[in-house]
Amino acid sequence: MRLSEFYIPLPDTNLRAALQEKIDHKTKPPGALGQLETLALMLGLAQGSLSPSLMNPHIVVFAGDHGITNEGVSAYPQAVTAQMVLNFCAGGAAINVFARQSGITLRVVDAGVAHDFPADLAITHAKIGYGTGNFLRTNAMTETDCEEALKRGTAIVGEIAAQDCNIIGFGEMGIGNTTSAAALMHIITQKPLEYCVGAGTGLDGAQIRHKRLIIAEAIAKHNALAFSPLQTLTTFGGYEIAMICGAMLQAASQKMIILVDGFIATSALLVAYTLHPEILHYCIFSHESNENGHATMHRYLGVEPLLRLGMRLGEGTGAALAYPLVQAAVGFLNDMATFDSANVSEKISS
Amino acid sequence: MRLSEFYIPLPDTNLRAALQEKIDHKTKPPGALGQLETLALMLGLAQGSLSPSLMNPHIVVFAGDHGITNEGVSAYPQAVTAQMVLNFCAGGAAINVFARQSGITLRVVDAGVAHDFPADLAITHAKIGYGTGNFLRTNAMTETDCEEALKRGTAIVGEIAAQDCNIIGFGEMGIGNTTSAAALMHIITQKPLEYCVGAGTGLDGAQIRHKRLIIAEAIAKHNALAFSPLQTLTTFGGYEIAMICGAMLQAASQKMIILVDGFIATSALLVAYTLHPEILHYCIFSHESNENGHATMHRYLGVEPLLRLGMRLGEGTGAALAYPLVQAAVGFLNDMATFDSANVSEKISS
Repeated sequence: MRLSEFYIPLPDTNLRAALQEKIDHKTKPPGALGQLETLALMLGLAQGSLSPSLMNPHIVVFAGDHGITNEGVSAYPQAVTAQMVLNFCAGGAAINVFARQSGITLRVVDAGVAHDFPADLAITHAKIGYGTGNFLRTNAMTETDCEEALKRGTAIVGEIAAQDCNIIGFGEMGIGNTTSAAALMHIITQKPLEYCVGAGTGLDGAQIRHKRLIIAEAIAKHNALAFSPLQTLTTFGGYEIAMICGAMLQAASQKMIILVDGFIATSALLVAYTLHPEILHYCIFSHESNENGHATMHRYLGVEPLLRLGMRLGEGTGAALAYPLVQAAVGFLNDMATFDSANVSEKISS
Repeated sequence: MRLSEFYIPLPDTNLRAALQEKIDHKTKPPGALGQLETLALMLGLAQGSLSPSLMNPHIVVFAGDHGITNEGVSAYPQAVTAQMVLNFCAGGAAINVFARQSGITLRVVDAGVAHDFPADLAITHAKIGYGTGNFLRTNAMTETDCEEALKRGTAIVGEIAAQDCNIIGFGEMGIGNTTSAAALMHIITQKPLEYCVGAGTGLDGAQIRHKRLIIAEAIAKHNALAFSPLQTLTTFGGYEIAMICGAMLQAASQKMIILVDGFIATSALLVAYTLHPEILHYCIFSHESNENGHATMHRYLGVEPLLRLGMRLGEGTGAALAYPLVQAAVGFLNDMATFDSANVSEKISS
């Protein structure tokens, strides 16, 4: 599956005036619900409805390992990726707690973890390989594998959409994947590498400098600054990042609302956005991470996140925590009284 | 009831180290849940427990009218206060939608609305008067009425606490009450009036200047800059603001968690804080409003709000929207696995 194959429909902007009028007639001063009003408008446009709804919310966590961890770019050993997949299955990770709280169905996908999971483990087995190649030495993936990852991400979303889900978030787990995401960000946004590389799971200053040097060396070696989005994803990406990219494109092509999570999930979106900027009509930016680079990604995309809680965990945790705010936006639009219906006086004209 | 009568117990800080250790052993990098970790620590300390819990959450909306509206300080007519009380009772306001979504019990109190509500209306009838006096001409309240308002706020919280509620938010409705709140803020924080006065429900630039001049004139007339907290509240406050002040003090004295809402609710807290700074151990700052002055209040108190959604509505809406984040903080602390229990490897020591 190629990145160019997706078709993302544009929202019907004819609905904009009617939606804005509906929002403005609710019993509150115009604009008094701030970002929730912007969100309600976006949801109405994306769904083509004056009464948008949220159905069967899902978060899919894609897990994959990264050859670049051989270069000492992470504060945790690679084994943690597989261990955390088992933790997800046992219900003990942060995303389990937050998804349960919000009534969000959680699905875990082995996109390419360097571990054999039992066949009967309650995950989606979509392993492309036992971790990517070390991109300082070779390409992270072959082009065939990258396209297969896009395709599997696409298929998983297609299945979930068939279960009447219309809002979906994507999380990830993969030791080393902030290194991949920083490389993708640097090549796509052309922002200085210092703006793109951060502490990940907890590197100190010297370790962050080492991580930055590794990425700089790899980019020079591959002569990658003029790479196409697919080349960039193939050379520096991860199986989980490629699957999220395909999953997001498929979600938007089916007019599903996408809850965009943290630094790594947003790096997958950057790849999708480069070819299909119209994907933004379906995206809600849930949380601006404490990871260096994430705020710059948001500014590059020209978007405003709902939450800034200083988290840096991934897993889809930002998406899960933002979901109640999305419910609140739909709730006020559908359920609040109007000035007329509640017999409340309107603003004094000045 | 006098402001000095309350006794607020200090949290047992001996629990701090054990709580921090519990937080740090969860399967996530140290600090990776950002503000939720700070919140979990605060909740554990306030409740004196390694496993804090949230029981029977309530939001109480206090409504009152303001004589200062005679000076043309609001974008809406005074009648809206009573109309909105009826809207709350019919379930049509924003706070109804958000409280329902989060399973929060909503209670509406007539603190002093200039309207006679039917005796069988599902509100708490605690009316002190038919709106306060116009503080440009006279005191907003008599000292007796102000103390009675503190007492009624106290009693309402006592009743709710007896229903096993341990977390409570306070909202308000009162056309003109940002003018009262701005005056309270100016006198208590001594910040320039420009920092304290905002658009309220939607004044334009010239109207905001008029509002500022009215407040400046009133403060000069009462020679109020050296007023005690009780004098300040009596002279410039509102029945709903005084009841919230008493309610907050009572909540903290019973070790309940207080969800602090917007500009007006925070002005009530400022009065309480001046005599009882230890109240902050029980306060969660839910949302930083778009109302000019609210951010300065937060900085004055040295606190960090959970949300910044650009809202400016009051009613307790910020408290209701922040509540799921409080649930998430309790949830991760109680329900996440530890590195040991989930067999996840710890950070590589550097």
